[in-house]
Amino acid sequence: MQHGVRRVVLDVLKLRDPPLPELAMRLSSIPNIDGVNISLVEIDQNTESVKIAIEGSNINIEKIQKLMKDYGAVIHSIDEVVVGKKMVTI
Amino acid sequence: MQHGVRRVVLDVLKLRDPPLPELAMRLSSIPNIDGVNISLVEIDQNTESVKIAIEGSNINIEKIQKLMKDYGAVIHSIDEVVVGKKMVTI
Amino acid sequence: MQHGVRRVVLDVLKLRDPPLPELAMRLSSIPNIDGVNISLVEIDQNTESVKIAIEGSNINIEKIQKLMKDYGAVIHSIDEVVVGKKMVTI
Amino acid sequence: MQHGVRRVVLDVLKLRDPPLPELAMRLSSIPNIDGVNISLVEIDQNTESVKIAIEGSNINIEKIQKLMKDYGAVIHSIDEVVVGKKMVTI
Amino acid sequence: MQHGVRRVVLDVLKLRDPPLPELAMRLSSIPNIDGVNISLVEIDQNTESVKIAIEGSNINIEKIQKLMKDYGAVIHSIDEVVVGKKMVTI
Amino acid sequence: MQHGVRRVVLDVLKLRDPPLPELAMRLSSIPNIDGVNISLVEIDQNTESVKIAIEGSNINIEKIQKLMKDYGAVIHSIDEVVVGKKMVTI
Amino acid sequence: MQHGVRRVVLDVLKLRDPPLPELAMRLSSIPNIDGVNISLVEIDQNTESVKIAIEGSNINIEKIQKLMKDYGAVIHSIDEVVVGKKMVTI
Repeated sequence: MQHGVRRVVLDVLKLRDPPLPELAMRLSSIPNIDGVNISLVEIDQNTESVKIAIEGSNINIEKIQKLMKDYGAVIHSIDEVVVGKKMVTI
Repeated sequence: MQHGVRRVVLDVLKLRDPPLPELAMRLSSIPNIDGVNISLVEIDQNTESVKIAIEGSNINIEKIQKLMKDYGAVIHSIDEVVVGKKMVTI
Repeated sequence: MQHGVRRVVLDVLKLRDPPLPELAMRLSSIPNIDGVNISLVEIDQNTESVKIAIEGSNINIEKIQKLMKDYGAVIHSIDEVVVGKKMVTI
Repeated sequence: MQHGVRRVVLDVLKLRDPPLPELAMRLSSIPNIDGVNISLVEIDQNTESVKIAIEGSNINIEKIQKLMKDYGAVIHSIDEVVVGKKMVTI
Repeated sequence: MQHGVRRVVLDVLKLRDPPLPELAMRLSSIPNIDGVNISLVEIDQNTESVKIAIEGSNINIEKIQKLMKDYGAVIHSIDEVVVGKKMVTI
Repeated sequence: MQHGVRRVVLDVLKLRDPPLPELAMRLSSIPNIDGVNISLVEIDQNTESVKIAIEGSNINIEKIQKLMKDYGAVIHSIDEVVVGKKMVTI
Repeated sequence: MQHGVRRVVLDVLKLRDPPLPELAMRLSSIPNIDGVNISLVEIDQNTESVKIAIEGSNINIEKIQKLMKDYGAVIHSIDEVVVGKKMVTI
């Protein structure tokens, strides 16, 4: 069985700009992505910590990483990955 | 895939006036919005902190921001944004 | 879209009289109201703090406010308002 | 809309006698009552504190109050009342 | 309406013997009982505290009490009773 | 009504060997057992504490006890037993 | 009844490399596996602690253990195993 990545949750530090809706829109325009949720964790002067959950089929992590980099956002860690035809939870 | 913003949660500081029902009614009259929930977080002498959750399809954030400004309300932060055909949760 | 208020939650200080069932019955007789839940928060000598949740379609808040006033009840705050065709939660 | 009381929760102090099953049976024999739940909160030498939840349609609160009195039980407070065609929760 | 007791939860102190499966089997053989759950709360040298939940229709509490007594088990309290056609929860 | 034991939860101290998958496989090969869940509670040098939940119909507890003994595992206590046609919860 | 292992949860210490998506992809390519969830627990300089939940039918634990070893990952413990036709929970 090989269905590729279906869900990934990222811990990200980003600049205040772009605002969350714009970043979410851009992420959702990557192929194979069905939905994006960005939730604010903490706000600082110039940066904000966010959790980004992305769901789809066969998600291309590198395209996500590249897009984040283009926006000056740093992926601190990948907090969760789900792969396969069944959406397994811990 | 591009479905625009489906859900946004705002952290807002507003004057006591307009009251929540009026503000919610006004927000819900913006095109593409299917529902609005305003929940009180804290009350002060002249202001109140509220969380505003707005759901719809292809929500126009700028129209929301403009309407808030017209009412003298300040958006402290966008706490959550959901984009895409799937309503992803963290 | 304009569906009016579908749900409102009130934080209310009322006299011990009328008892909760009578107040709930009276509130539910206001047009467009489908259901009323009154839950006790705290009891004092002559007063009681209650949360009142009212659901319906196109709820007329002023009629609720007037009825509360007629019963000598004070609405401390509107804690939650939901408007629109979708029952959005925070 | 007028559907009468659908659910009421009582905070009651009762003597050890009658036991809970007997009291619940008696309450359930009042007309319009579909179900009764009595849950023990605290036991004392001669008394017990209980929560009594009663559901039905058009529940006659006075009949409940009378029955409780006949059994020497004291209703400390009505903790929750639900009225209307929709079972609203807080 | 009169449907008799549908659910009862007992707080019981029993000897280590009979073991829980045997006691549960015996309780379930009383007429009108659809299911029995015995959960361990605390173990002592010779005794154990258990919660016993029994569901059925028109449950005969006295038969339960007699069976418990025959096994040398003491019912400390009846913690919950549900009566009627609707399984009401607090 | 007599449906025998449908669910039993055991608190067990076992040696590190056999590993959980082997023990679970062996338990599931006992007749009438539909499923087994073994969850680790604590690990020591040579032993591990586990909770074992077993579901089926008419479960033969003695066969379980014998198998555990054969593996050098000690059943500290039976934490939960469910009997009857209805899966009752506390 | 014998359905083999349906779910296993592992507590694993791994090097930062390979990243979680690659490891999850590799695990999901083992035969009989329907889904894999890897969730980050803690990050250190060179290592990360993760929980890995794997679901399927008749899962071959040894193949998982071998793959982990090939990646220099250490299985600290098997935290949960589910076997049988019914997905039993504790």
